[in-house]
Amino acid sequence: MPPPTPVLTPDEINRYLDDVFPELNATRRAYVVTDVGEGTAVVTCAAGPESLRPGGTVSGPTLMTLADIAAWVVILAHVGRSALTVTTHLSIDFLRKPEPGLLFGRARLMKLGKRLAVSSVEIGDADGRAPYAIASATYSIPPPLERG
Amino acid sequence: MPPPTPVLTPDEINRYLDDVFPELNATRRAYVVTDVGEGTAVVTCAAGPESLRPGGTVSGPTLMTLADIAAWVVILAHVGRSALTVTTHLSIDFLRKPEPGLLFGRARLMKLGKRLAVSSVEIGDADGRAPYAIASATYSIPPPLERG
Amino acid sequence: MPPPTPVLTPDEINRYLDDVFPELNATRRAYVVTDVGEGTAVVTCAAGPESLRPGGTVSGPTLMTLADIAAWVVILAHVGRSALTVTTHLSIDFLRKPEPGLLFGRARLMKLGKRLAVSSVEIGDADGRAPYAIASATYSIPPPLERG
Amino acid sequence: MPPPTPVLTPDEINRYLDDVFPELNATRRAYVVTDVGEGTAVVTCAAGPESLRPGGTVSGPTLMTLADIAAWVVILAHVGRSALTVTTHLSIDFLRKPEPGLLFGRARLMKLGKRLAVSSVEIGDADGRAPYAIASATYSIPPPLERG
Repeated sequence: MPPPTPVLTPDEINRYLDDVFPELNATRRAYVVTDVGEGTAVVTCAAGPESLRPGGTVSGPTLMTLADIAAWVVILAHVGRSALTVTTHLSIDFLRKPEPGLLFGRARLMKLGKRLAVSSVEIGDADGRAPYAIASATYSIPPPLERG
Repeated sequence: MPPPTPVLTPDEINRYLDDVFPELNATRRAYVVTDVGEGTAVVTCAAGPESLRPGGTVSGPTLMTLADIAAWVVILAHVGRSALTVTTHLSIDFLRKPEPGLLFGRARLMKLGKRLAVSSVEIGDADGRAPYAIASATYSIPPPLERG
Repeated sequence: MPPPTPVLTPDEINRYLDDVFPELNATRRAYVVTDVGEGTAVVTCAAGPESLRPGGTVSGPTLMTLADIAAWVVILAHVGRSALTVTTHLSIDFLRKPEPGLLFGRARLMKLGKRLAVSSVEIGDADGRAPYAIASATYSIPPPLERG
Repeated sequence: MPPPTPVLTPDEINRYLDDVFPELNATRRAYVVTDVGEGTAVVTCAAGPESLRPGGTVSGPTLMTLADIAAWVVILAHVGRSALTVTTHLSIDFLRKPEPGLLFGRARLMKLGKRLAVSSVEIGDADGRAPYAIASATYSIPPPLERG
């Protein structure tokens, strides 16, 4: 498998996210695609107060949402706009309590088939050495006829 | 294994959720524990507009959050207040697009050990026949000394 | 969703397993479909000595194999012979050490779509009250043209 | 987190596997630890005929078993002999049909806590570029008192 080549830039994906999920960032302005490469994407998340748990840690759902978005963005970056792509499965292991600060979701495209795509994600801080969580997610890609 | 007996009522759990996660319901007033039984719990979620995706479907993160909360509530209901209980793993399969309306997260306690608890959750509508998603989640139970 | 109706009997499935996976049971004669119902199937496994771990417990891979077979059989029972159906994902939680004796894998069909099917499985003993493991598995169903 | 240092060599682990799981390799002589590094381990598997499926592909359970063994070996290599370490969860995504030949399970230690350890595994061929499967697994580490 030669490394897949992205077809969208981070800016294009950020604009697309604003169009498709206006509520996501209107209320929180939190998830930003910062990098796209061959088979990779990085999404950051500035966890706001509604994401915190007792003790100041970031909530599990915040990490799951970042994992889902990063996993989806790396597919979007390589297949192009296809809003109907649907998550069919997500599995996440929570490894360490996140430190306060910007969260980085680093996604890798593990498979890009005609019908299914699979990504894996590591969520960590800026240097990425001891991840807070690891996840994998599967997406169903609609057949061309249904994509109109 | 005799069926485990709950030690908290839905009202007690709802008050506890308000205390521990004030942001969760201050901004959304969405997750309500409606029933607790022997090894079971039901949490409902009135998905607000920020939960919707194009086409009016409910977002994956909304379903994941409900799964995590319901899975956690069924443990809480049986071990008592223990805010430090930490999710270590969650796996979710998305089966069908949710219909608009109240979501029901029906959780079953599958294991309640000294160190780990595992719950499974079905997310569906009021009648629960064709679930929108199924999930399992694992929680680490802190040792008594650390619980203070 | 009305309950799906099986199209194969346990005997037909057992014969099909012998045809398709001769090695599986030639060497071990272990996995037997004992029941098929509306959206359900039961597969038993007589764990042989090669399945045991120190202390006499049954190995994780034995439980995973039973989970995969039961999850696949419940789909096969409802879609008919389709040897190309491929596992795309399996997630399993190990809850308790199995007691020596026959293992029962009880599978439920959670979704039967045109392209994907999802089953969940509980592995336990004859009475099934305290499961040894719970699993979910996803299968890709080939398009009719490829099934030729 | 500084990179963890292994405390056992591949030879020591292979001998330990033979002692603890005599059946595993007596019948198949298949799983060999070939490399151990800081937070990493490699286990190879020569899939025999009993691992094959129609069309000559390697069975899902063979890949799951390799994933479980590689995930367990990387923990064993870093915590030392501790036969009671128990798998609590395993999640695997099947990405591509394996080619005939030696399978490589490349495991990374993602977390090594006092009570839980988590590894991730990629299963592929010798060059490892397009993995056949990715997995994560969680293990419960018994408290020192129970280890005798």
